[in-house]
Amino acid sequence: MVEFRKSIPIGEAVSRIMAINIEGKSEYVSVNESYGRFLSEDLLATNDVPHFDRAPYDGYAVRSIDTVEANRDNPIEFEVVDHIGAGLVSNKNVGPFQAVRIMTGAQMPESCDCVVMLELAKDYIKDGKSYMSTKRKHRPGENVSRRGEDARTGEVLVEKGTKINPGIQAMLATFGYAKVHVAQKPKVGLFATGTELLSVDEPLQPGKIRNSNSYMISAQIERAGADVLYFGTLPDDFDTCFTAVKEALNKVDLLVTTGGVSVGDFDYLPAIYEKLNASVLFNKVSMRPGSVTTVAELDGKILFGLSGNPSACYVGFELFARPVIRKMLFSPKPHLRKEKAILDVDFPKANPFTRFVRSKLSVSDGKLIVTPSGLDKSNIVMSLAGANSLTVLPGGTRGFSAGDEVAVLMLEDHEGSEWPW
Amino acid sequence: MVEFRKSIPIGEAVSRIMAINIEGKSEYVSVNESYGRFLSEDLLATNDVPHFDRAPYDGYAVRSIDTVEANRDNPIEFEVVDHIGAGLVSNKNVGPFQAVRIMTGAQMPESCDCVVMLELAKDYIKDGKSYMSTKRKHRPGENVSRRGEDARTGEVLVEKGTKINPGIQAMLATFGYAKVHVAQKPKVGLFATGTELLSVDEPLQPGKIRNSNSYMISAQIERAGADVLYFGTLPDDFDTCFTAVKEALNKVDLLVTTGGVSVGDFDYLPAIYEKLNASVLFNKVSMRPGSVTTVAELDGKILFGLSGNPSACYVGFELFARPVIRKMLFSPKPHLRKEKAILDVDFPKANPFTRFVRSKLSVSDGKLIVTPSGLDKSNIVMSLAGANSLTVLPGGTRGFSAGDEVAVLMLEDHEGSEWPW
Repeated sequence: MVEFRKSIPIGEAVSRIMAINIEGKSEYVSVNESYGRFLSEDLLATNDVPHFDRAPYDGYAVRSIDTVEANRDNPIEFEVVDHIGAGLVSNKNVGPFQAVRIMTGAQMPESCDCVVMLELAKDYIKDGKSYMSTKRKHRPGENVSRRGEDARTGEVLVEKGTKINPGIQAMLATFGYAKVHVAQKPKVGLFATGTELLSVDEPLQPGKIRNSNSYMISAQIERAGADVLYFGTLPDDFDTCFTAVKEALNKVDLLVTTGGVSVGDFDYLPAIYEKLNASVLFNKVSMRPGSVTTVAELDGKILFGLSGNPSACYVGFELFARPVIRKMLFSPKPHLRKEKAILDVDFPKANPFTRFVRSKLSVSDGKLIVTPSGLDKSNIVMSLAGANSLTVLPGGTRGFSAGDEVAVLMLEDHEGSEWPW
Repeated sequence: MVEFRKSIPIGEAVSRIMAINIEGKSEYVSVNESYGRFLSEDLLATNDVPHFDRAPYDGYAVRSIDTVEANRDNPIEFEVVDHIGAGLVSNKNVGPFQAVRIMTGAQMPESCDCVVMLELAKDYIKDGKSYMSTKRKHRPGENVSRRGEDARTGEVLVEKGTKINPGIQAMLATFGYAKVHVAQKPKVGLFATGTELLSVDEPLQPGKIRNSNSYMISAQIERAGADVLYFGTLPDDFDTCFTAVKEALNKVDLLVTTGGVSVGDFDYLPAIYEKLNASVLFNKVSMRPGSVTTVAELDGKILFGLSGNPSACYVGFELFARPVIRKMLFSPKPHLRKEKAILDVDFPKANPFTRFVRSKLSVSDGKLIVTPSGLDKSNIVMSLAGANSLTVLPGGTRGFSAGDEVAVLMLEDHEGSEWPW
């Protein structure tokens, strides 16, 4: 009953998945709905920013040449001939020793080339006319934001594949992108298998546990940037599973199943892949947990047969399914971000295979520190809750001590890595 | 026209805001909708986990006492009397030298106390009966997950105020939380002020810019965990502004306005606060950018008068409004997370006031490195797009050099700090 499986290295497994020709699609959404989505095209400047010379402060626009003689003992007087707020344009032709009172953001009058800040000007009325004076010499361009200073028309401002953050939202609005090209969210189908599974609202029964994997994976799918289509749990029955999987494949871009892939007698997924004529990329990986992960491809869709064990399922999703989702979101760095950190505690267990330990990554004095977030039993749901990272302990190592440098994969990060293996 | 304002230190400003008695509310949502929300009650274990002794591997459940004599030269034979998958319970009374074939996750038969892993057992048929043999002595409890090993009934598993991640989703399901107590999303009203503002779909006009702040702040509000009620832009007119602000206050928990708080002649917000009888907590802060931020309180609602300048607006929101939102989400660490990092470039500018520089925080060899993400002109929208942090340069400093240690505030983080000032 123990079928033969050839275990392959993780990097090779990931590489086989990423070699599948699967592409993201683009859609066009309102800027009001674009926060948190991924750009499917480079974001270009549609105009110069600023698109006119503007005052960055409240003050008086003048001709700098008129301030040449100004100093502490020689205030220069200007007649205030106009007064404009942001959004307004003065139509006055400002001549020598004339000034326009100007508010932050307003367009500079044609003939003026500097701004005397409000705090440095003295204003007064004389013979019913407004005046101001300054005791400082101003350089041409002083206190003026020049047209195109921030960005030039046509410039690439943000690259495709970037997740839209509040700053990018501001840029989209600045450049008049009322609608934005973003990646369609991949549709990821999800099944949980196993007669041992109770639904969340059922009371516990002897021998049974509640289905938690599907809630966990749903959240992981969402965190990765895709939409979930949850098809429910499947009983441990071949024909029912087969039909359900086959039908589900018509509705999704990717299909995730949890459970049914180990060498247990009720684990049908490998047989289902065979009957579907799917090409199995691998059915065993040299890693812990998650070694029995099986991944297959059928007509450009990828089927991820993850372990039913919560930790193996969690890790398998992040290593194998997440990068495909991010690739479909046009990310140039689809994999979990990898960094180095200092191990905070001893980890004496030897690692015949590369091990992924659910961990809490923190910062102490500017340095990354990582602590395994629970006992390292692969069935312990509890340790998942505090995990924001996976510590990678390479295969063939004899254990680690506090203070050792290790690699970590960051779970809540959105920058990613190009290729962390 | 330059009214007198007393500048207060930033810690004092934040402290005055956080002293306002404003509390979050709870709601009860389906576990299907709880990912990304914030727990409004501690999450308690509703049962032991596992809630029965279970097999963590596929194998044979036996009595460990029967394996005492097993060794490489002396395989011990067991008669296989039953066969159970996960979710099933054997009703056999397993006697001496009898075994139950058991799958991962299944409940241990009453009289068995260890599992011989499938890989280490030899199975065969003899006289039409199933047998297996093992060459290893097993300890009591070996390869058995004990009831309550992961969690005990009543234990606090996750504290209130925690953002629900995929691991917590798994726990909610495990413990039968079909519905979950989460924090209501605070309703944050938003106005942009200023006649200089064009809407995102309008062509540019001389002297005018498109309204980008409201898109930026909307995304910041969402990132902080609240819902936005955008009330549109207001012209630079006192009466219209006053009526709109007054009516909006009935519909929201917090109100954010951008623009209209500086000392320009068209900046009405301070006067509106006065006419509303709101108590102004401060109207100037010793910081750059954002010094003209004005915050007021009225009937337990907080009015954030942020600068119209994009950078000042951005920073003001993160320092002053975000912690209130997070407090309403029951977070014990409502402020932006503060860490130390090494400055990657020179920053020669002196800082009479504490300065917040939009920055890109990265990791190099396990150490946090920070680089200002654009020119430090406060009107530069561009630099916001790449920012994932704010570098804090304390007031009264003469500039910094590459290699100096500085404090950074992390913008995309969800852990937060208790009090970073």
